[in-house]
Amino acid sequence: MKFRIRTLPLRTERIAVVLSQDDAAELGLLPGDRVKVTFDGRSFVAEVEVTHELISSGEVGVCSFTAETCSLMEECVVNITPFARPKSVEYIRKKLDGAKYEREEIRDIIGSISSDILSEVEISAFILASEIVGMHNDEIQWMVEAMVEVGQKVVFEKGTVVDMHSIGGLPGNRFALIAVPTVAAAGLLIPKTASRAITSASGTADTMEVLANVNLSADEMKEITEKVGGVIVWNAATGIAPADEKIIRVEYQLELSPKPHLMASVLSKKLGSGAKFVAIDIPVGRKAKIENVDVGRSFANSLMEIGRNLGLKVATALTDGSQPLGRAIGPALEAREVLEVMERKVEGDMLEKALGIAGILFEMTGIASSGYQHARKIFESGRTLEKFREIIAAQGGDENVRAEDIAVGDKTYTLHAAREGYVREMDIAVLNEIARTAGAPKDKGAGVYVHKKRGEVVKAGEPLLTIYAEKEWKLDNAIEVANTKQAFEISGVIIERYTMGRW
Amino acid sequence: MKFRIRTLPLRTERIAVVLSQDDAAELGLLPGDRVKVTFDGRSFVAEVEVTHELISSGEVGVCSFTAETCSLMEECVVNITPFARPKSVEYIRKKLDGAKYEREEIRDIIGSISSDILSEVEISAFILASEIVGMHNDEIQWMVEAMVEVGQKVVFEKGTVVDMHSIGGLPGNRFALIAVPTVAAAGLLIPKTASRAITSASGTADTMEVLANVNLSADEMKEITEKVGGVIVWNAATGIAPADEKIIRVEYQLELSPKPHLMASVLSKKLGSGAKFVAIDIPVGRKAKIENVDVGRSFANSLMEIGRNLGLKVATALTDGSQPLGRAIGPALEAREVLEVMERKVEGDMLEKALGIAGILFEMTGIASSGYQHARKIFESGRTLEKFREIIAAQGGDENVRAEDIAVGDKTYTLHAAREGYVREMDIAVLNEIARTAGAPKDKGAGVYVHKKRGEVVKAGEPLLTIYAEKEWKLDNAIEVANTKQAFEISGVIIERYTMGRW
Repeated sequence: MKFRIRTLPLRTERIAVVLSQDDAAELGLLPGDRVKVTFDGRSFVAEVEVTHELISSGEVGVCSFTAETCSLMEECVVNITPFARPKSVEYIRKKLDGAKYEREEIRDIIGSISSDILSEVEISAFILASEIVGMHNDEIQWMVEAMVEVGQKVVFEKGTVVDMHSIGGLPGNRFALIAVPTVAAAGLLIPKTASRAITSASGTADTMEVLANVNLSADEMKEITEKVGGVIVWNAATGIAPADEKIIRVEYQLELSPKPHLMASVLSKKLGSGAKFVAIDIPVGRKAKIENVDVGRSFANSLMEIGRNLGLKVATALTDGSQPLGRAIGPALEAREVLEVMERKVEGDMLEKALGIAGILFEMTGIASSGYQHARKIFESGRTLEKFREIIAAQGGDENVRAEDIAVGDKTYTLHAAREGYVREMDIAVLNEIARTAGAPKDKGAGVYVHKKRGEVVKAGEPLLTIYAEKEWKLDNAIEVANTKQAFEISGVIIERYTMGRW
Repeated sequence: MKFRIRTLPLRTERIAVVLSQDDAAELGLLPGDRVKVTFDGRSFVAEVEVTHELISSGEVGVCSFTAETCSLMEECVVNITPFARPKSVEYIRKKLDGAKYEREEIRDIIGSISSDILSEVEISAFILASEIVGMHNDEIQWMVEAMVEVGQKVVFEKGTVVDMHSIGGLPGNRFALIAVPTVAAAGLLIPKTASRAITSASGTADTMEVLANVNLSADEMKEITEKVGGVIVWNAATGIAPADEKIIRVEYQLELSPKPHLMASVLSKKLGSGAKFVAIDIPVGRKAKIENVDVGRSFANSLMEIGRNLGLKVATALTDGSQPLGRAIGPALEAREVLEVMERKVEGDMLEKALGIAGILFEMTGIASSGYQHARKIFESGRTLEKFREIIAAQGGDENVRAEDIAVGDKTYTLHAAREGYVREMDIAVLNEIARTAGAPKDKGAGVYVHKKRGEVVKAGEPLLTIYAEKEWKLDNAIEVANTKQAFEISGVIIERYTMGRW
């Protein structure tokens, strides 16, 4: 049937057409069905929405995103025919019944997700099938290959290209800002792509953005890496493995991160950025994505095996996922802390982890037999900070920035210990919620600074954490979270006392 | 934060607000998150959409559906605060891990679906959990209770109230149009609610609509039942068990009908319409919702047990789901066939099934010890047709309608047998697709008439089926389906021949 285009003053980030109820019924279409839209010898597939008003019979509405993406103009005439449900939906149903995907099937699913042919409801079926039924290592490998295939791919002509990544979920986990320049200072190439926070208070890209521009294309990323040895950029801007972003958006709504997807997400980004040696950080803890060491070991083994089959040398490190890394949570607070470490003002787990991960890459590439010691030498010589300044400058930031220059939120509140004892447990989910409620990651200066970490002794009245915010009302909300949910568990050395009968 | 309402010239059938990207980030909101909207001392929960244009900072967009449902006017000022993810999402995640729902949990889930608090992505997680993990009988019972609780409920003060229902999926399955008046003619009350087609060529409500108005409220349904003994109305119009419609819409997108939902769907409608005795038709066949007799028996047992716990007396009948009931598929063709049966022009499986199901209800209520015979007596006395005319009149139709008055599509095409033999198999999915492609259920006169049924002998060149359409282009499309997909499997009595060596 022929329809006249009507552009709507709206923007949804997917390819969809709006039909009147009559026309939809005429074509036998229901909301969520797909149609093939043909005009000028070209065609695309769109999802159908149905409206009772606004669109008259004979008209088809498109939002500005669809109009631009598909080059449609007001009043132009298109032909619309029903389009069969994509095959990929059938494959997902097979997986729900416990079947294994074929290589072509998973390629088709990832292709459909990348080109917006699958609806969010269908993507959620894909996610749930992965979560419940799981995937074999070869299925994950095919998924990675398909994810890389549909995106930008960076190829370095020379040099040893390495990378590092965390599977995420740990507040303050910003070791890469120290490890990347350490690795680059040793002459390796490290085109590090990083995430922005979706549900956390800051991602590595958010924190790096306090210091430099992270929205770089794949070409810019390659150029800077070849020039100064390393970059730290936002992965979505590079266009590498774009299906991942779409899957993660639906996973967020379901509060699920199926392990096959976690693996495919990390490996596809690293494979797409041209790395050959990759060190992967796997935080383990009760509230982390990996709940215990046994699960972590099997996860690490799968990652390494799939990596090998993809031509990647993968090393993994199970790390402490039970408390924040360092003491700062939130973009500016974290950036400041990272600079303080590099300026030798503080030491601690942040530095240890950064040198440990850099060291793994030194050992993998044969640069040093004792990687940690080698990394430590580079760091202590000042070359890490020097290289970090070069990277910041190459990404358009101020190379002379110092820790004290970083502005953090000026509205603050400090929570004090009610009793003495030592910190037995910290709840990283609560710390994350306090920092987000205070405004992170949107308000760069918002977040939480943790004064006490696990095992540290606390006196009654001593500060436990300080909340930073840019806006008074967000501070108030964050204080409420801090006062109603327990971020710290403080206890004496004797946890409980039992007596029997009378003394 | 305070926002000014801007009504959008759009209508989506859910409660949502559109925020600018800046404001959404300011509130820490992502698409799919929920907010609490407060104004004038009232409040509601809405899903968040985020737009790059159209809505400025400080404004919040609402579609006309949301504006009407929530009484919002252009320019009025509302307060918006983030709203925590509903508990029901957590319960669904627990089920995905294999847990059993508590009574309050499933009540919460159904409540959230009914009040549009759950997104389609979350509803799809609920459906997939039911499909993969399944439900115990008591969970299904609680689901039914919750579904009835949030909808209209009809209570009859006197009389014996019975009902019948099919779990669906069988083309031409219109026995209720004969069985309902037969039951009503015997003095029972039968307030029959029926579905419209979603993926089939016609539902009982679509076929009844050829003869009378089916969009009646729960009150009208009750009034007519008390007056003439029976009705046949569209279930969604009555407002009984409204969550069901929303669940079914997402199930359609996933091409899934989890068995616990099939049971809850039927039982909630019957419980809500005030029935005490219910006969349920379960078509069994390779392409039916129930694939074989073993599955059918266990399904029937669960239905009866759950019914008993709900205070319903449930009888079930496993029926032939391998070929259409009668010979007509599509609203007008089916209505004509039903009238032909009642006018004693044709006999066959349609009449047998109608009398069989009516008979079950006669035996359950003690009206007759041999229910089928009793039903046959009523039918042959002409009282079925007489009562059907009363029901049609009460629902605003023409009580003098005769089979020959029913207009069917005037564009037709007949498919002939290429070889002689007998009909070994029919594919109900293909027949359904041909009828839908021809225009059913939207074009009431469109559909398929089947000349040969299973086991019948066919000569080469004899007609197998006739397609009816109202529009030439739809007929052409339906012919293409009929010529490329095989609705009939014809074979000789000898299916295959084997010889060994030479004679």
